[in-house]
Amino acid sequence: MAPTRYLRSSASRDVNPDLDIERKTPSFDVEKLTTILDGGAENTRVRRAVEAVIHSDPVFSREDKYFLSQNESYEAAVKKAVHLKKMMHQMKWSWAGPESKYCNRALGGEVAFTLHTVFMESILALSTDEQTAKWIPLAENYRILGSYAQTELGHGTYIRGFETTATFNISTQEFVLNTPKISAMKWWPGELGRSATHTVVFAQLYIKGKCYGVHPFIVQIRSLHDHSPAPGVTVGDIGPKMDFNHNDNGYLLLQDVRVPRENMLSRFCEVLADGTYVKRGSEKINYFNMIIIRVKMLSNEVVPTLMKACIIAIRYSVVRRQSELKPGDQEAKILDYQTQQQKLLPVLATAYAFHFMNEYTNELFSKGYREIKQKNFDSLPELHAFSSGLKAIVTEHSTAGVETCRKACGGHGYSLLSGLPSLYTRLAASCTYEGENTVLLLQTARFLVKCLGAAHSGQPVPPSVAYLSAVNSERCLVRDKRDFLQPDVYVEAYRHVAIRVLSSAAAKLQALVQSGAEQHEAWHQCTVQLVHAAKAHCHYHVVKSFAEAVEKLGQEAGIQRIMKHLCGLFALHGIFSNTGDFLHDGYISGDQVDMMTASYLDLLAIVRKDAVPLVDAFDFTDETLNSALGSYDGHVYQRLYQWARKSPSNTKQANQAYENYLKPLFQNGLSKL
Amino acid sequence: MAPTRYLRSSASRDVNPDLDIERKTPSFDVEKLTTILDGGAENTRVRRAVEAVIHSDPVFSREDKYFLSQNESYEAAVKKAVHLKKMMHQMKWSWAGPESKYCNRALGGEVAFTLHTVFMESILALSTDEQTAKWIPLAENYRILGSYAQTELGHGTYIRGFETTATFNISTQEFVLNTPKISAMKWWPGELGRSATHTVVFAQLYIKGKCYGVHPFIVQIRSLHDHSPAPGVTVGDIGPKMDFNHNDNGYLLLQDVRVPRENMLSRFCEVLADGTYVKRGSEKINYFNMIIIRVKMLSNEVVPTLMKACIIAIRYSVVRRQSELKPGDQEAKILDYQTQQQKLLPVLATAYAFHFMNEYTNELFSKGYREIKQKNFDSLPELHAFSSGLKAIVTEHSTAGVETCRKACGGHGYSLLSGLPSLYTRLAASCTYEGENTVLLLQTARFLVKCLGAAHSGQPVPPSVAYLSAVNSERCLVRDKRDFLQPDVYVEAYRHVAIRVLSSAAAKLQALVQSGAEQHEAWHQCTVQLVHAAKAHCHYHVVKSFAEAVEKLGQEAGIQRIMKHLCGLFALHGIFSNTGDFLHDGYISGDQVDMMTASYLDLLAIVRKDAVPLVDAFDFTDETLNSALGSYDGHVYQRLYQWARKSPSNTKQANQAYENYLKPLFQNGLSKL
Repeated sequence: MAPTRYLRSSASRDVNPDLDIERKTPSFDVEKLTTILDGGAENTRVRRAVEAVIHSDPVFSREDKYFLSQNESYEAAVKKAVHLKKMMHQMKWSWAGPESKYCNRALGGEVAFTLHTVFMESILALSTDEQTAKWIPLAENYRILGSYAQTELGHGTYIRGFETTATFNISTQEFVLNTPKISAMKWWPGELGRSATHTVVFAQLYIKGKCYGVHPFIVQIRSLHDHSPAPGVTVGDIGPKMDFNHNDNGYLLLQDVRVPRENMLSRFCEVLADGTYVKRGSEKINYFNMIIIRVKMLSNEVVPTLMKACIIAIRYSVVRRQSELKPGDQEAKILDYQTQQQKLLPVLATAYAFHFMNEYTNELFSKGYREIKQKNFDSLPELHAFSSGLKAIVTEHSTAGVETCRKACGGHGYSLLSGLPSLYTRLAASCTYEGENTVLLLQTARFLVKCLGAAHSGQPVPPSVAYLSAVNSERCLVRDKRDFLQPDVYVEAYRHVAIRVLSSAAAKLQALVQSGAEQHEAWHQCTVQLVHAAKAHCHYHVVKSFAEAVEKLGQEAGIQRIMKHLCGLFALHGIFSNTGDFLHDGYISGDQVDMMTASYLDLLAIVRKDAVPLVDAFDFTDETLNSALGSYDGHVYQRLYQWARKSPSNTKQANQAYENYLKPLFQNGLSKL
Repeated sequence: MAPTRYLRSSASRDVNPDLDIERKTPSFDVEKLTTILDGGAENTRVRRAVEAVIHSDPVFSREDKYFLSQNESYEAAVKKAVHLKKMMHQMKWSWAGPESKYCNRALGGEVAFTLHTVFMESILALSTDEQTAKWIPLAENYRILGSYAQTELGHGTYIRGFETTATFNISTQEFVLNTPKISAMKWWPGELGRSATHTVVFAQLYIKGKCYGVHPFIVQIRSLHDHSPAPGVTVGDIGPKMDFNHNDNGYLLLQDVRVPRENMLSRFCEVLADGTYVKRGSEKINYFNMIIIRVKMLSNEVVPTLMKACIIAIRYSVVRRQSELKPGDQEAKILDYQTQQQKLLPVLATAYAFHFMNEYTNELFSKGYREIKQKNFDSLPELHAFSSGLKAIVTEHSTAGVETCRKACGGHGYSLLSGLPSLYTRLAASCTYEGENTVLLLQTARFLVKCLGAAHSGQPVPPSVAYLSAVNSERCLVRDKRDFLQPDVYVEAYRHVAIRVLSSAAAKLQALVQSGAEQHEAWHQCTVQLVHAAKAHCHYHVVKSFAEAVEKLGQEAGIQRIMKHLCGLFALHGIFSNTGDFLHDGYISGDQVDMMTASYLDLLAIVRKDAVPLVDAFDFTDETLNSALGSYDGHVYQRLYQWARKSPSNTKQANQAYENYLKPLFQNGLSKL
C-alpha cells in the first residue's frame, strides 16, 4: 500500500509555488488576450459554458483514455457521440453551430460520427434537391449513419486513378458497383469499419462501355435491421493505427452491388434512364467546399493541438528543476536554460503566428465565398494555391513543434500520461490527410510559377502574389542587432527570399525547356526546388500576416508589446534556422546573421518571462489537456504517480506472467527448467 | 465473407514484378556487401543460422504484435525471454556472445530481461570479488531477477541531485533506505514494475549525519516465495508509454527498507563496521563502462532501426504507383519522383554513414579499452566527449530519418501494420535515455572549447580534435559541380565549418568573460551556439569516417563505387540542408551552392537505381521487419488486407458498440432517444 503522504487530495486547490510565481506579474492582461484568441468575449463565454456542461458529465470523462485498447477507444467514442448528440438535441445546439465546435474542443476530438457529418456535407454539396430531401432527414435523425468512401488501397491523392467501377445497367435502371482488383478496395474511410450503414462511394462511371470518370454514389453497406453487411459487401476495420484508434477506419470490397439510378449524387451530372450522360452547372462551388475543409482543419484541429503541447511543455518546464545554472545555487527551472528556451519558445511563437494566420485566411475565404456565391470564380485558383501551401506548412511545422515539446519534457514526455505522445501521433496524420503535403506544395508552386510569368510580362496577378511584380531589394541595410526587431526589416527579408527562390526555380525550369527537355520532364527535375519556393512563399505570408495582426492590436498596449516580441521571435527563428536562404545571394551578410542571432537570443530571454501567462491565455481546461504534466496547478509528480497507480498494468490480472513464467523460473532455476 | 481471389496463398513465392525488376541489375555484389556490413562472412553465417532457429519456433512469432495491449505485450515479452534463455542454455550460447546479439536482432528487441543483464553488468563492474561470487551465480541461474534503479521521478540526467537516502546504522550494521519525498521515488527503471525481485538502488549515502554522495546498494524488492513486495517497499508499473510497452518500467518507493552492510557494492568504496568510509582504486574504469553502453546502443539498436525503416519505405516506394510523370503514361513508381528520392535516399545514405561511423567508433573504443586495462586513462576525456556528441547526433538523425520514411509512405505509413510507427515511437526514446541529447552535446562542447584553447596555445590535443590546430582554409576552390563529388572537397568544407562555428562560440564566451560576466553565466549565454559547435564537430567526423571507410573498400570495385555515391549523397545532403553554415563567412559562394545542389540532385538519380539492392543488403528477414509494406516479395496490398482481417477490431466482441449504442439510436432516431 502506498503511503498517503505522497498523494494529493483532489480537493486541494493550491498551486505549485514554482508555477504560481510565474503568474504573479504578467506584462499583459491574460484574460483579455484569451478573448482576442477566442474572437471576442461572447465566444469565450459560450466556450466556457459548453466546457462546464461537458466536464460535469461523467459520460464524457477522459480519465482512462491512455489505458484503452483500440476496441475500447472505439466503443467509448461511439458512446460519447450518441450521448453528445442527445445532449445537443436537448440543448437545441445545431451541429453546425459554435457550441458544436466547442464540444469537440472540450472532448479533444475523441468522439465518433465525424464522418457522418462529412457524409451529410457531401450530400448537401453534390446532390439534387430531391436527393437532399430524401437523405438529409434520415441522416439528421440518425436513422442511418454515413461514411465517405473515397480513398482506395492503391490510390489516395490521385483521384483520377481510382479503380472502383459503377456500371450503368439500362435494363434494371441500376448502377452495379465493383472492386475489380485488390488495390481498388476502399481503405481508410472513417466510420466505415464497424459503424456506418451507408456511405458515399466514389467510382469510375461506365455507361455502354465508356468511362465518364469518377462520380459519387450512395451505397447501403449494412442492414438497418441487424447491421450485417449488405449483399455483395465485404466490410471491416483496417486495424490499429498510430492514433485515431477511436475511429473505425475501414475497408470496403464491392461485388456486383446494385444501387438504383437515383443513388448517383446528381447536382452536377446525371445519367438519364436511357443512359444519356448529362452535365450541368459548375462544379467549382463543390471544389471550393473541398478546399475550405483544409482551412477549417487548421483552426479546429491543428493549431489547437500545437497550443496544447506548448501549455504542457512550458508549465512542466517551470516546475521541473534540474542541475545548476550557478554552482552552489538551488537547482534551476529547466525553462531558465537557453537551450530549453530555444526549443520551446519558437514553438510558442509559431502557435501564435499560425493562430493569426488562420484568422487572416478565414477572412480571405469569407470574402472568396461571397464572390463565389455571386458566381464569380476568379479568386478560386489563388484560394486553392494559398490553402494548399498553407495546409502543408502549418501541419508540418505544427507536427514538428509538438514533437519538440514532447522531447523537451525528457523521459516524462515519453509517458502517455503526459498527454504529449498522443498529441504527436494524432497530429502526424494531418501531414497526409486532406492532401499529402508534398503534392500540395507542388500545386502551390505551379500557381506561383504561372503568376511569376504573368508578373514578368506585366499582367495583373492576384493579391497574394502581387509582391512578385515588385523589384526585388538587393541588400538588407541593417547595421545594428536591434534593427532586426523591426517588422519591416524581417518581412522584407522573407519577401526577398520568396522571390529569389521562386525565380531561381523558374529560371532552371525555363533553361531546361529551352535546352530541349519536355515540359513534364523539366518540371520533374525542378520539384525539389519548387517545393522550396512554395514553402518560402507561405513562410513569407505567415510572417507578414502576423506582423499585420500585431499592428492592429494598437489599442491593447501590453498585448501588442508581447505579441510584437513573439512575432519577432517567430520571424528571427525562421531566419536563424535557414540562414542559407538569406545569405545565398548576399542579401544579408555573415555579420548581419550574427546580429540577427544576438537579437534572437535576446528575444528568448524576454519571452521567457511571460511564457506561462502566454500559454495560460490559450485557456484549455485540465480535462481537455488530460496531461499529468500540464495541469494548471503544476503538481506534476503527484499526478504522474496517482495516474500510474490507476493503470491496468497494476492490476492483479496484469501479473499472470509471474504465475505462468517467472515463478517456475525462480523455483527451478534455468538449468532445471 | 471475403472473396479468396483477393487473398494470397502463404505458399506463394512469387515477387511483385515492380519490385522484382529492381533487383535484376544491381551495380554491385549484394551478398558481398551484406558480409561487409556483418563484419565478415562467418558473422553472416552465424546470424542466418540464429534467425532460422528463432523464426521456426512459434513461441517467438511476432504476428500479433500490433494487436497487443500493454499487459499482453509484457506477458509475451516475459514468455519469450524465458523460452529464449532456456533455448540459449540448451544451445550453449552465452549471454555475452554473438548469438545473443543476433537473437535480439531477430526478435526486434521485444524480449524481457534486458535490465537483468544490466543488473549483472553493474554488479560485475561495481562489486568486490565476494559480492560477485554471491550474486552473479544467483542471477545467471535466474534464482533472482534484477533491475537497475537509478532515475528518479525528479531527477534523470543530473545524478548528483538524487534524493533517495541510504543511512548507515552502526548498531544493526545495516543501511536504511528511504524515499524522503515524492520526487525521490525511483521512476522508469525497466523490469522494476512487475518482474524483478532485486534491484541496484542508487542513493545518497549518509554516515553519522554526513553525506558521502551517490552509491549503489542491492535491495530485494519482492518475495522469492510469492513475489509480494518486500517490507517497506511500494512498487508498481508506471503505466503506458509511447512504446516499450513490453517492458515493465516501474516505480519504487522505499520506507525504512533495511539491507545488510554487505549490500553496498564496494569495489570503489566501502563502509567499515565502525562507520569509517574508505575509498579505493579508480572509478575511471567504471566510468568507461558507462560510456561504452552509449556506443553499443548505436550499433545494436539505433542504426538497425534506421535500416529497417529504409527497407520498408524503399521497397514500398517501388511497388506503390501514383499519378503520372509523363502525361498518358502508366502511373509512376513513387520512388521515381525527385521529391520522394529527396526524402528517402539521404536517409539511406545516413544509415550507411552511421554504420561505418559505428565501425570506426568500435575500433576507437577497443583501443581505448586496451589502454585503460593498462591503467592508462589519458584517452578517457576524449572518448567521453566523442561518444556523447555522437550518441546525440546519431539518435537525433536516425529518429528523424525513421519518421521521414514513415511519412513518405503516406497513409499506409500511419497503419501500425506497416511497422513504421513502432520503429519511430521506439527510437524516439533513444534521444532521451542514456543521456539527454542536449546535455550530452554541451559536454562535448565543453571538451571542444578546452581543446581549442590548448590548440591555440600550442599544446598537444587528442587525435579527434587535432584538426583544430591546423590553419583554417579560407575559400572553397570548386569551379564545377563535379568537384563537389570529391571527398577531399566536402570533408574539407565540413572541417572548415566545424572550426568556424566552434571558434565563433568560443570567441563569444571569451568576450563575455572579459567584459565581466562570471564563467557560468557566460557559458549559459552561449549554450545554443555551443550545441551548434558540437554538432558541427560530430557531423565532420561522420563524413570523414565514411569517406575513409570508402577508401578502404578498394578491392571491391562495384561496392566502392556505390558507397562513394552514398558518401557524397550524405555529405552533400548535409550541406544542402545547412547552406548557411557554409555560406556564413564566404567559404562557399551562392554560385557554389548552386553547383553543389546540382551535384546533389544528380546523385539522387544515380543512387535511385540501386536503392532496392542497397536495402536488400541490410538483410533483415520478413519476420524481423514485421511489416505489411516492407516484405521481400513486395505484395503490399494483399498483406495489408490479410493482416487487417486478423485484427481484434474485426471480431464479434469488438462490436458491442452496435448493440449498446448504435442499435437503439437507429431504431428510435435521435428525437425519441
